[in-house]
Amino acid sequence: MTTDSFPSIQWQFSRRAQQLQSSVIREILKITVRPEVISFAGGLPSPATFPIEPMRAAYDRVLSQQGKIALQYGPTDGYAPLREWIANSVSQDGAKIVPEQVLMLSGSQQGLDLLGKVLIDHGSKVLVETPSYLGALQAFSLYEPEFVSVPTDDNGLLPETITSLGQHARLLYALPNFQNPTGRTLSIERRTTLVENCARLALPLIEDDPYGALSYRGEPLPKMISMNPEGVIYMGSFSKVLTPGIRLGYVIAPLPLARKLEQAKQAADLHTAQLTQMVVYETIKDGFLDSHIPTIRQLYAEQCQAMLDALTEFFPSGTSWTRPTGGMFIWVTLPKQIDSMKLLDQAIAQNVAFVPGASFYANEAEHNTLRLSFVTVSKEKIREGIRRLGGLISAASA
Amino acid sequence: MTTDSFPSIQWQFSRRAQQLQSSVIREILKITVRPEVISFAGGLPSPATFPIEPMRAAYDRVLSQQGKIALQYGPTDGYAPLREWIANSVSQDGAKIVPEQVLMLSGSQQGLDLLGKVLIDHGSKVLVETPSYLGALQAFSLYEPEFVSVPTDDNGLLPETITSLGQHARLLYALPNFQNPTGRTLSIERRTTLVENCARLALPLIEDDPYGALSYRGEPLPKMISMNPEGVIYMGSFSKVLTPGIRLGYVIAPLPLARKLEQAKQAADLHTAQLTQMVVYETIKDGFLDSHIPTIRQLYAEQCQAMLDALTEFFPSGTSWTRPTGGMFIWVTLPKQIDSMKLLDQAIAQNVAFVPGASFYANEAEHNTLRLSFVTVSKEKIREGIRRLGGLISAASA
Repeated sequence: MTTDSFPSIQWQFSRRAQQLQSSVIREILKITVRPEVISFAGGLPSPATFPIEPMRAAYDRVLSQQGKIALQYGPTDGYAPLREWIANSVSQDGAKIVPEQVLMLSGSQQGLDLLGKVLIDHGSKVLVETPSYLGALQAFSLYEPEFVSVPTDDNGLLPETITSLGQHARLLYALPNFQNPTGRTLSIERRTTLVENCARLALPLIEDDPYGALSYRGEPLPKMISMNPEGVIYMGSFSKVLTPGIRLGYVIAPLPLARKLEQAKQAADLHTAQLTQMVVYETIKDGFLDSHIPTIRQLYAEQCQAMLDALTEFFPSGTSWTRPTGGMFIWVTLPKQIDSMKLLDQAIAQNVAFVPGASFYANEAEHNTLRLSFVTVSKEKIREGIRRLGGLISAASA
Repeated sequence: MTTDSFPSIQWQFSRRAQQLQSSVIREILKITVRPEVISFAGGLPSPATFPIEPMRAAYDRVLSQQGKIALQYGPTDGYAPLREWIANSVSQDGAKIVPEQVLMLSGSQQGLDLLGKVLIDHGSKVLVETPSYLGALQAFSLYEPEFVSVPTDDNGLLPETITSLGQHARLLYALPNFQNPTGRTLSIERRTTLVENCARLALPLIEDDPYGALSYRGEPLPKMISMNPEGVIYMGSFSKVLTPGIRLGYVIAPLPLARKLEQAKQAADLHTAQLTQMVVYETIKDGFLDSHIPTIRQLYAEQCQAMLDALTEFFPSGTSWTRPTGGMFIWVTLPKQIDSMKLLDQAIAQNVAFVPGASFYANEAEHNTLRLSFVTVSKEKIREGIRRLGGLISAASA
């Protein structure tokens, strides 16, 4: 038998993998790398905010002084000084977090996979916002839950609906600050009610908070984990306040769940790079973020305002959009008859890109919605891109 | 309702997570960090082999010259120049690998999780060696397969048994070079037969090869992927030839499977750190490994010989052990009546540690076995540790 005579394999994928698809966003991003495209499609932080020099210096110090430790296998739960820093930092909101609750992750997306893995069975009821973060839907869907879409309005999800929707559910996933994709923020009254209603049902509440630090003005609202550390699972990330390319995030969970997540993490990738964790700790331990984060906030606030101004100037009546107070995204609702997926084809022909809203819905999609990101595009190009989009929408509305 | 009045949650874990346990090895490692312990329990490479200075210089160059790219989100499949380097490197064995087949991983352990995720359903038949790599058993077990243990002898698994055992199986997992835990190498004749028998059954064959480069003398045997690139999935790692602490590995798969694994990777952690991939590429692109790997081989060969000598000197008749021609492990078989788990308690009391063999069996365990690693212990301590162990075994045999 020679190699050539081997029959090629008809791959039999697992049931969970058969329905798996690539993220629409990642497919759009492949199209929009052409430099002439004005892309509002990305969810990428602005590279202008990356602290390249402080991190270069930190890599230099850690490798020079602790190279043999940094380059060796490390503990699954993470680098102890960084876990302690995170526990202290989140405890400042009154949550009383101990380092043992903190599990370091290879990006907070990994937390979604691990939470799905240890909490979701085939058919488990999983509550998500309408719309919700696409990466969470992707991660959870591999564990074949039954998604339940929680109704929302401009102040985020409606917590009173949980009392019935959340019966016998396995978890509720929420992104309370400057939500991806809508830019909405859950009001403090709703946070309180949501935490209470989840607690009454003993329903684990996942508080995903990658953008929480990026408020344009004033202080962020209290974290839900501070209201019930025994029932809320908090997910954080260094992607938006430092850099995403290093892949570093964390999950804070009640101890029994934290240990189970640690076991799942061990099977998934043993541990997150020691070197990365040591370098991030080295970079931030003396208060770097206190001066760095305000510079990101200011940049994003200005970019957001530029897009809001352009939307007002160029988008026709019958369209509406959110007015975020932080984060990276604006959510647009078009007249009912416009399918944003078709609009995208026309927009790309005019070298403008965005993400159609349909992918962000776990169940019935609203096809007349879209997500705009404003953080990596210059103000001039924001105005020009929104002008072109407005023209297309006006034409489609006519 | 105040915070204190919230009932604490009785965590309901998924069925797959309920049987999940922490690795015995990681638990033992926690005990054996005391400096007075002579630990043969680790699977850690020797930090003396870490190329700290070349990597420090590479971090410096990449961050200075390409910081904004290195610190940004990157493609899920990985950094293109590194994928091309890997494809070329593995193709040198005659495998004709294209970069599109290479998926970069956050350590090759992640490949085991992803392969389990996309190939294993509840009850799927999964063939593994007897004994097999613990991390693979852990990763696969989350997807609830029915493990089938393939018989082995000193030349590795018996490929003729596949013809019946492999009927309607989903995959066969093998570690052909200097296997973890046994140190055994699958002979070239058996590789050929195994590849043929798997191909006839259209049974995907996973070739896990973290130690392949670490042969003490002569050239490594041909990779099985070179014999049938359409049916063999190859897994590689930079952990043993560069450093494990950065968490970088890869899987090479036939294209339909590679794309499915990429989708699963996207849901699992979006992508592996760009910076890490760029730095590794920067470190190795001009042939660094050609001069570096021989230094690791020489060190490990000497350490291995020191342990083999000590075993001959101190272990009583009735015990036997493997004589590896590469890698990091020796496998010991004790007289039938000795349970290595009980021996471990006595050994730790004498400040010596090893890994009992039972954890490496998917099904019926042989409790009179144990794994010894010799790479991180000095020759003097190897001799002393083996002397103490030999004394305990002699006493238990008496």
